[in-house]
Amino acid sequence: RAQFLMDMIDTTTEMGKGMISMYMKYDALRFSGYIQPQFQMAQSRGAQSYAGGNFPAASDNRFTLRRGRIRVDYERYNKQDMPVVQFAFQFDGTERGVNIRDFYGRFFETKFNLFSLVGGMFARPFGYEVNLSSADRETPERGRMSQILMRTERDLGAMVSFEPRRKDHPLRFLKIDVGAFNGQGLTATTDFDSHKDFIGRIAIKPRKIKGTKSQLSGGVSVLYGGMQQFTKQIRTMGTTDGKPAFMIDSSVSNVGKIAPRHYYGADVQWKISNGEGKGFTQFRAEYLRGRQTATALTTETPGVIPVEADGRLQPLYIRNFDGAYLYYIQNLGSIKHQAVLKYDWYDPNTKAKGKDIGAPGAGLTPADIRYNTVGIGYLYYANEHLKFMVYYDWVTNESTDLDGYKDDLKDNVLTCRMQYRF
Amino acid sequence: RAQFLMDMIDTTTEMGKGMISMYMKYDALRFSGYIQPQFQMAQSRGAQSYAGGNFPAASDNRFTLRRGRIRVDYERYNKQDMPVVQFAFQFDGTERGVNIRDFYGRFFETKFNLFSLVGGMFARPFGYEVNLSSADRETPERGRMSQILMRTERDLGAMVSFEPRRKDHPLRFLKIDVGAFNGQGLTATTDFDSHKDFIGRIAIKPRKIKGTKSQLSGGVSVLYGGMQQFTKQIRTMGTTDGKPAFMIDSSVSNVGKIAPRHYYGADVQWKISNGEGKGFTQFRAEYLRGRQTATALTTETPGVIPVEADGRLQPLYIRNFDGAYLYYIQNLGSIKHQAVLKYDWYDPNTKAKGKDIGAPGAGLTPADIRYNTVGIGYLYYANEHLKFMVYYDWVTNESTDLDGYKDDLKDNVLTCRMQYRF
Amino acid sequence: RAQFLMDMIDTTTEMGKGMISMYMKYDALRFSGYIQPQFQMAQSRGAQSYAGGNFPAASDNRFTLRRGRIRVDYERYNKQDMPVVQFAFQFDGTERGVNIRDFYGRFFETKFNLFSLVGGMFARPFGYEVNLSSADRETPERGRMSQILMRTERDLGAMVSFEPRRKDHPLRFLKIDVGAFNGQGLTATTDFDSHKDFIGRIAIKPRKIKGTKSQLSGGVSVLYGGMQQFTKQIRTMGTTDGKPAFMIDSSVSNVGKIAPRHYYGADVQWKISNGEGKGFTQFRAEYLRGRQTATALTTETPGVIPVEADGRLQPLYIRNFDGAYLYYIQNLGSIKHQAVLKYDWYDPNTKAKGKDIGAPGAGLTPADIRYNTVGIGYLYYANEHLKFMVYYDWVTNESTDLDGYKDDLKDNVLTCRMQYRF
Repeated sequence: RAQFLMDMIDTTTEMGKGMISMYMKYDALRFSGYIQPQFQMAQSRGAQSYAGGNFPAASDNRFTLRRGRIRVDYERYNKQDMPVVQFAFQFDGTERGVNIRDFYGRFFETKFNLFSLVGGMFARPFGYEVNLSSADRETPERGRMSQILMRTERDLGAMVSFEPRRKDHPLRFLKIDVGAFNGQGLTATTDFDSHKDFIGRIAIKPRKIKGTKSQLSGGVSVLYGGMQQFTKQIRTMGTTDGKPAFMIDSSVSNVGKIAPRHYYGADVQWKISNGEGKGFTQFRAEYLRGRQTATALTTETPGVIPVEADGRLQPLYIRNFDGAYLYYIQNLGSIKHQAVLKYDWYDPNTKAKGKDIGAPGAGLTPADIRYNTVGIGYLYYANEHLKFMVYYDWVTNESTDLDGYKDDLKDNVLTCRMQYRF
Repeated sequence: RAQFLMDMIDTTTEMGKGMISMYMKYDALRFSGYIQPQFQMAQSRGAQSYAGGNFPAASDNRFTLRRGRIRVDYERYNKQDMPVVQFAFQFDGTERGVNIRDFYGRFFETKFNLFSLVGGMFARPFGYEVNLSSADRETPERGRMSQILMRTERDLGAMVSFEPRRKDHPLRFLKIDVGAFNGQGLTATTDFDSHKDFIGRIAIKPRKIKGTKSQLSGGVSVLYGGMQQFTKQIRTMGTTDGKPAFMIDSSVSNVGKIAPRHYYGADVQWKISNGEGKGFTQFRAEYLRGRQTATALTTETPGVIPVEADGRLQPLYIRNFDGAYLYYIQNLGSIKHQAVLKYDWYDPNTKAKGKDIGAPGAGLTPADIRYNTVGIGYLYYANEHLKFMVYYDWVTNESTDLDGYKDDLKDNVLTCRMQYRF
Repeated sequence: RAQFLMDMIDTTTEMGKGMISMYMKYDALRFSGYIQPQFQMAQSRGAQSYAGGNFPAASDNRFTLRRGRIRVDYERYNKQDMPVVQFAFQFDGTERGVNIRDFYGRFFETKFNLFSLVGGMFARPFGYEVNLSSADRETPERGRMSQILMRTERDLGAMVSFEPRRKDHPLRFLKIDVGAFNGQGLTATTDFDSHKDFIGRIAIKPRKIKGTKSQLSGGVSVLYGGMQQFTKQIRTMGTTDGKPAFMIDSSVSNVGKIAPRHYYGADVQWKISNGEGKGFTQFRAEYLRGRQTATALTTETPGVIPVEADGRLQPLYIRNFDGAYLYYIQNLGSIKHQAVLKYDWYDPNTKAKGKDIGAPGAGLTPADIRYNTVGIGYLYYANEHLKFMVYYDWVTNESTDLDGYKDDLKDNVLTCRMQYRF
């Protein structure tokens, strides 16, 4: 074996050449992945949940593989150590099937080392939570609002990014993304209309606050998109007898117009060091509002042209929404132990509240109900490849006059998860 | 290029750093995979078969990709060379689609180096054949019993293992697994009830028999699970006019109870050396019995709540079963050549035999028929990455009084397979 | 870190052993992949297209991930540096799902180093375009003919190849493939009949033309297959009143016979150097003709036994077809810039032309229409991992007497693509 190694570093032998060739092959390649098996208990059988999806009708506990991701990255740098090209393939494999997640390429210009062009399937450049990987997140799931408005986070499109890559660039703290997208993301196999969504985000990267041990980051985002109205039946909020209600608009001229999908958001992150080896105190907040087009019974962006079971086009419902989340994350005297407290709300229809929902003739549905969620969790970081998470979601809905939604639903969920990553 | 290699071992250069970083990246990572293309001929068109699935109605020969597996393992060890964490991602890709197989993580405690905790999708810790990979197996398929009772072998759950990892531990020959599982494995996308299956296994690893050139191993296993009865229609075996028949029980109190899935098994493996370079003689046996809940026409555990085409709940059938297999594996004077002889049976309903099945009013169906299979095969190991296999399955069913099953079916199958692995 | 590297090349340390083991593990393994995101505009909404599939009914532009491939190859050589075994796993992941592409193994005999045996899912050994990877091709898609006759290019089967591997072999310019295949490729999950397709190809590898800076290659191919006739309804072309029309043959004896799938093709490639660093001028041509069996409304080989919506067997249509493509590829004074001009046609029914199609009683359908396509494209090779492609497909159909096909359809397509590969 000693001979073997002498061969290995001798470039005139096959082995030496093999070594160089292997180095060349694998240096630019990076493999990573994570697996998140979990056991969950819900407060009732068939609980509707955004903590990993609804429970089956007859079950209130389950093992699931929440995520199983394997990813291959390829990155090349030039002689100035500036990136030239990067691309990523990521698969998600669970008991529910195998699908792609990130599948994109990024091309970097190397004249200014400022701009890059991305094409493919990648996370929408909107907000903070949407772009934070579950492998890094301190909670099992994104908030209800993020899941409904931007299911699977990703979309097919192209994006230009401004992000200085030279270490001495005066705008190095800045990142600006602007892109065009199909709109439906991974919820359908193709775009159903010709209208594209435009998304932009300006972000300030973490900056130290002078005279403190803390750093601040944040951003503002806008999604300005929409979907073509194939139906003439458009519903928007107004008032009937002084009470909020959906107004029926059936003008023929509605057909062909673009129904709005307009989101505006701002987010901020504050991270305070607790001292060497003691971890951090972190606060995060994000607020979103805007106008969303969907259908009577959901506020999720349709993946296909929405039709009834009999094939007739469904009316489109345009609602004003808002929502937010707040995180408080605290290491418990050690980087191995961490507690997290999260509050989030999503109000899919800001013009209707409580008992208005369910009033006869208002046309309001369960999709108009506001939900508040308080989550409390404990994380144990066993090592760099494994963390354990115990998390309880305490979900509260508005009390309405709709049957089945007059009181708080029994939909709290306890999640026990192992998170492996490499 | 000589300079290149000098750079490579010089830690102050970028190349040297890259080399270390590459070593770190790839040392813990392991890729493996196998591909099993095959050509098969059946005795008749549309033959029902457990040798790779039923033949299409109008075909008696076919090329198939029986399995195409690619797997990524990640393993970390501590300074005492004891494992700390291991996780695995395995995909199966064939012309029938892409699915996951193993997707699990294992966490090892390093205080005693005795216990580990596994979570995710992994092979049920039951029996020997279920846990023997097709890449290592000498026959193309597991026995009919293993396939019906534990389709795809794997299930979602969590398991604690006792297996001493220190070389000098007095119980190093022992392995004990105890786990809880959803029950449906990869046959459905989620658990349909709240009841979990418990599985346990105690195994003795291969031990040399004193004064011989042979070694012995074995184990005992139990699966103690069940499924919720959503229907009140429960069928169990009894007798009508002294003849075995399914009894109809329609008590309302049946609803909500747990129908049994109880398996008990024992297995033994005996491996005798034929001398240096001449390979081995091997015998393997495994016997299972228990009570299984399924439906009228199959004894496979349902993946979803079983309903008729019109949506009504199907009655549940509870049957006592048993089954076994026997292997005789013989190297032919060389490790390159090997012959295998296998006998297995599966009796899905031990209380009904032959002509009883099909007797009017007994309610017995083709799912109650016992099958015996004799398999004979020849294997050629071309190199460590490729073996060729020719195998003939001679399948015999009981002669019953059911139309279509009065004689032995023409369902023998010849399999010609190439098995690649790395 | 210096110590680390000294350890690394010291075979007596764990690190040294690890290094050898890593080298062994990864030397035979090769990862590759490509991603092709694109934006397309069609001349009309819902355009029927072979430039990446039909447009959705209400859309004339779209982002798509045309292909996302990741591939693992494993190759072993013997001491004479001759290949012993090779196998490949390739997945395709896009927003439309995850599927396999190449999944095959190849076994090389090492006595003569002439023959090899392939088994699994791999490209049919027919023609030039079918076997040219999209990563290398200068156009976004294969021609209409290739796509219709050999959808997804690959099929399940086994093939023997003759290809001298010793550098000094007198027949080193020659490659001969002969194989048997299921027939349906990746369009179905299994073969629906017992009949197999035989495919053969003789190819001359690129050979320098004496006294020139150009090289020539080419080949001839034959596919001799078919499908079982389950229906007695067979349609072949004849004449009615002197006009071409499908003849109805309903003989009971048709059932069980084999309907033809016979293709005959020849291809040639001519590559002329433009001088150092200036790239090449290339011409490629391929012509196919034969007899194809399909159904009334398509000439694509069925993946399953073709039935009507109500379950009745569809009549089979047997047509004589021909088709061809011509490429002219020109580097623009640099290997970074390239222009391509392509003409292809596919005439699915050579016995019916123009206004004959749509004549009352002839039974001809849109599937009988000939299409000509002129494609013009510009490629920019940014680096070895990325090329940009802008390509316009100008598609012309015959003017027929069929409603909706009396004039040229508005189905031209502009494709803007980024192609990443590693």
